[in-house]
Amino acid sequence: MAVYTDITDDELSALLADFDLGAPLSFKGIAEGVENSNFLLETEAGRYILTVYEKRVDAADLPFFLGLMRWLAKHGYPSAEPMADRAGELIKRVRGKPCAIVEFLNGLSVRRPTVAHCREAGAGLAGLHLAVDGFPMVRENDLGQAAWAPMFADLHGDAEKLKPGLAATIAKDLELLAARWPVGLPTGVVHADYFPDNVFFTGGKFAGTIDFYFACVDAFAYDVAIALNAWCFEPDGSFNITSARALVAGYETRRPLSDAERAALPILAHGAAMRFFLTRLHDWHATPVGALVKPKDPLEYERKLAVHRSSPDLVLFGTPTA
Amino acid sequence: MAVYTDITDDELSALLADFDLGAPLSFKGIAEGVENSNFLLETEAGRYILTVYEKRVDAADLPFFLGLMRWLAKHGYPSAEPMADRAGELIKRVRGKPCAIVEFLNGLSVRRPTVAHCREAGAGLAGLHLAVDGFPMVRENDLGQAAWAPMFADLHGDAEKLKPGLAATIAKDLELLAARWPVGLPTGVVHADYFPDNVFFTGGKFAGTIDFYFACVDAFAYDVAIALNAWCFEPDGSFNITSARALVAGYETRRPLSDAERAALPILAHGAAMRFFLTRLHDWHATPVGALVKPKDPLEYERKLAVHRSSPDLVLFGTPTA
Repeated sequence: MAVYTDITDDELSALLADFDLGAPLSFKGIAEGVENSNFLLETEAGRYILTVYEKRVDAADLPFFLGLMRWLAKHGYPSAEPMADRAGELIKRVRGKPCAIVEFLNGLSVRRPTVAHCREAGAGLAGLHLAVDGFPMVRENDLGQAAWAPMFADLHGDAEKLKPGLAATIAKDLELLAARWPVGLPTGVVHADYFPDNVFFTGGKFAGTIDFYFACVDAFAYDVAIALNAWCFEPDGSFNITSARALVAGYETRRPLSDAERAALPILAHGAAMRFFLTRLHDWHATPVGALVKPKDPLEYERKLAVHRSSPDLVLFGTPTA
Repeated sequence: MAVYTDITDDELSALLADFDLGAPLSFKGIAEGVENSNFLLETEAGRYILTVYEKRVDAADLPFFLGLMRWLAKHGYPSAEPMADRAGELIKRVRGKPCAIVEFLNGLSVRRPTVAHCREAGAGLAGLHLAVDGFPMVRENDLGQAAWAPMFADLHGDAEKLKPGLAATIAKDLELLAARWPVGLPTGVVHADYFPDNVFFTGGKFAGTIDFYFACVDAFAYDVAIALNAWCFEPDGSFNITSARALVAGYETRRPLSDAERAALPILAHGAAMRFFLTRLHDWHATPVGALVKPKDPLEYERKLAVHRSSPDLVLFGTPTA
């Protein structure tokens, strides 16, 4: 949670002068989002979020992200709609950084999802996978399976610092994932960061999805696997198979999985755990002491990796095989 | 800017169950306020700010602060009104900490106040000094003139670290302030932290005041002096006499100053600079490296002290005497 970029009232007025949103009524930095600076902006026309994109988001990807959000909003999926200025532009600049004004989306994220939340979240994810059909833009998954071994090449020392012996275990995992990574599954635009803090509920019902800044083209089932890791582990590190079944069942109310997709879930979940472990491991040691944002603990995902490694059928059947 | 206390959806629901505000629709931490954790809360009944009081606010003072805010709102002053629960309580608890739900107040604070803003801000401050008339509670100013010498007793070393020779200069200032501090001026409840970030504007017009957590009984003119320091210095450290005259003129449209109050402004402004210098000096060295909140630079107020010291009539006449 952070606001990296300060916006003065003059800068805000200059930005709003390009839009038909009326005068600003309220403007507050939000303690949300570790990648960007976010502000709650109320104008005479309504409520919006102003997002200033900080260095981690590649400006070249913004047309994809904002185009996707606009596509989703126009196709009935509850995603915050980016506002175009009078010239039709979605991407603006403030303080020399790219920014965008998107609709404010109502709803609350849950900190400790229940089984019922997992079912709703699954249905919401399937709705997303249906709504992206026909979206014409493409963005490769630069954090996909092919990227993991090269990423890890620079992180052996960091892994050993985290836990002696871990580097060899991860290297073995990476070999296994490369050998068994499924091909030929149905693909399309996936969220790729469908964590509880990016999903809103109202009265316990799925209300919308935010933060599409990792969205890319990959297997839909990989998105389900990311969600299983993010939603279905208990704070003590155990995997809650009831939550997992509810998430998948909720998903299948909108988009049934093929046999191949279902069979691939365990290896996809193992890989999804690897993806978040590697980026967290990188950030853990790259974040300077005293930074505004505390990096997320890579050990959380190291434990999830260990669960998938030792119980490769867990996601499907809920019973450890080892 | 910070959110120190995490509130889960369950904790929020439990808190709201005591109120008649309906179900929550949205809940976001705000990057605002260095003393407390603040959340934007939207419910079926409206928009609110949930403030969780962290250790710097003395819980024993909360009835005064919240009672004052309620008094102001009921007497037509634009201040966020605290919401009472069904039992009539304004002060609730969450995560073992005191908290309160107050109305959301529209408006934007300005980063670089213009002369026109200073005039509006002055009028808004006078309106506050009129609206507190009759408020029955009292809170002493524990950061008032009598407190400065005892505070500085522990900070000699810190002052020297900041700037060699500064400790002796400050000690001399404190003697002067003790000798010349005005007595017998009109007193009442003052804001005592009337900085640009605590004052809201809409369309350039004064729209309201927030953050009453330093409010106390002191001379009204001392509040004007705090505001002169906070609003009328340029980023280069020079005092803008045009802004100062506008602030005082705006104030006097609502509450004319007596001759004694006007004559006291220079020494009150010198003292007000001392008060903020001392607390910033304390926080500067007491804040651990890596804390979520960066302490404010005491040198900003050391420079303001120097201005008042060398030009004791500046606030009144705008011409340096030395």
